[in-house]
Amino acid sequence: MDMDSALEALLSVVGDDLRLVNDAIVARMNSSVALIPQLAGHLITAGGKRLRPLLTLAAARMCGLEDAARPARLAACVEFIHTATLLHDDVVDESMLRRGLESANALWGNKASVLVGDFLFARSFEFMVEDGSLKVIRSLCNATSVIAEGEVLQLMTANDTTTTEDQYMEVIRSKTAALFAAACEVGAQAAGAPEAHEKALYDYGMNLGIAFQLVDDYLDYSARQAELGKTVGDDFMDGKITLPVILVFERGTDEEKAFLRRCLEDQEMEDPKADLARAIQIMAKYDTLGETVTRARDYGARARAALSSFPANPARDALIGIIDYCIDRAH
Amino acid sequence: MDMDSALEALLSVVGDDLRLVNDAIVARMNSSVALIPQLAGHLITAGGKRLRPLLTLAAARMCGLEDAARPARLAACVEFIHTATLLHDDVVDESMLRRGLESANALWGNKASVLVGDFLFARSFEFMVEDGSLKVIRSLCNATSVIAEGEVLQLMTANDTTTTEDQYMEVIRSKTAALFAAACEVGAQAAGAPEAHEKALYDYGMNLGIAFQLVDDYLDYSARQAELGKTVGDDFMDGKITLPVILVFERGTDEEKAFLRRCLEDQEMEDPKADLARAIQIMAKYDTLGETVTRARDYGARARAALSSFPANPARDALIGIIDYCIDRAH
Repeated sequence: MDMDSALEALLSVVGDDLRLVNDAIVARMNSSVALIPQLAGHLITAGGKRLRPLLTLAAARMCGLEDAARPARLAACVEFIHTATLLHDDVVDESMLRRGLESANALWGNKASVLVGDFLFARSFEFMVEDGSLKVIRSLCNATSVIAEGEVLQLMTANDTTTTEDQYMEVIRSKTAALFAAACEVGAQAAGAPEAHEKALYDYGMNLGIAFQLVDDYLDYSARQAELGKTVGDDFMDGKITLPVILVFERGTDEEKAFLRRCLEDQEMEDPKADLARAIQIMAKYDTLGETVTRARDYGARARAALSSFPANPARDALIGIIDYCIDRAH
Repeated sequence: MDMDSALEALLSVVGDDLRLVNDAIVARMNSSVALIPQLAGHLITAGGKRLRPLLTLAAARMCGLEDAARPARLAACVEFIHTATLLHDDVVDESMLRRGLESANALWGNKASVLVGDFLFARSFEFMVEDGSLKVIRSLCNATSVIAEGEVLQLMTANDTTTTEDQYMEVIRSKTAALFAAACEVGAQAAGAPEAHEKALYDYGMNLGIAFQLVDDYLDYSARQAELGKTVGDDFMDGKITLPVILVFERGTDEEKAFLRRCLEDQEMEDPKADLARAIQIMAKYDTLGETVTRARDYGARARAALSSFPANPARDALIGIIDYCIDRAH
């Protein structure tokens, strides 16, 4: 299945449910404070494939729930959490490109990004409270807490070239995969699915999220990234320590490691473009980029295995198709 | 009653309950991510009078609750929300002094302040979920949402000298008083008090919070501020439009208004110190600083009236005493 058809299969499974999500998002983004819908709308309505909300909707369907009212509200909640995280990420990373548009931060400034992010977090909690299930509230609440911890951990490992694979995995599990996991889990919870199914969907989301972030970290050093409308080498310039770099520290020569230390730890770039090109060359020598994608495939296989206890149906097929979709972004 | 004895009376009413709050704060601030307890601890443990948590504890006691376990957890939740707001405020205001210490932002940078603030918000929601009452969750959730809206509104009115009294009141109701109100309200809710008492405590907190912020905005132009270990004129330098300024725009000459417009709107200061001195002189001419304190007293009287339906007891007396405490900071 190619990339676009995987996404289309997922969209056709959830049908009109996605419109309910979009309506909930627009309604709840509103505020008499004009800057809020302006800035939040820039991110939320302008784009994104709504991947996380789609997971919630499809998970609920796979668990047999026909009425999409609850999962749609929870899907909107998940998208708000995700968008709030992006807004706060823009502040902290000073990234100038987000989804190919100028970042909200560049357009409106740090102040607005922090505060509108806070507003979206608060509204996401209102969605949870409206849902009213303490189980659901617990899952989503826990996810936001783990995300925040992951973001701080990422900040601490930035520029630290002694970062281990374990620490890196902890960061991506927390900052990215925890929300994928919760998005899927609350779909099952909204459907009143048995606990084994909740857990299976949590595992699916967690492994999918890890695969997704591994591919993201691969893409940052890949020519493919430019085709997707994003700059190459952001992580390198920010001194983020991701798997393609960590693997070089396990395999490279002293001279190669000293070079990376200068760029990533000391942030001393003589010629940033040339330094980036040399870093990519070293990664190619040890195939650390290829290995990052291989690991993404491993986690993809675990995500697939997590769904094995569900009977075959279009929603399950679509959720399996989306694993390939996430990994095939690499090509 | 003088200032210190008002605070002491409140402390003696809640007795050991405050220790429960501190224990909950320290336990929940913890994280394997070392920067989190470091940075959060800098703000939470280093200082603050725990005014908001004390309100929750005293409100629960006034409503007849002896067991402090629930109100202590909710009081810790309120303090987390407050601290998260301060951390994000430090980012947006670039304020270098907070409680007389260097701000967390100045010490650790914007990134860390945003992310640790997010962590504290997330943990505050965990406290709510642990409490388990949807009523309580709704009150505190709503407060965080209103605070975020108020912060964005404040950002929009910054440097806008056409800001009206109504807009200003909306800002301080949202960004400050809403949390005072919720802190008191959840104390009543934890005690299972009748709805009329919940509402009375909400009103008390709302009016107390408004009075508190009015005094804060007065103090920013007052020599008294320097004695409290804070710099004078922060609001002026940031172009924040507070009541002492708004009243000059209602009463001043064209020349005085043009002067303030240059400083606050265009941010063109020839000699910031001299400009601040002139602004204070103009405020003195129309007694707008005195009037700001007078209004604070009016809201203080409303806060007192809100408690009139409660029978006299030490908790009620302490809550009334704290009104004067908040206002007497002006002297």
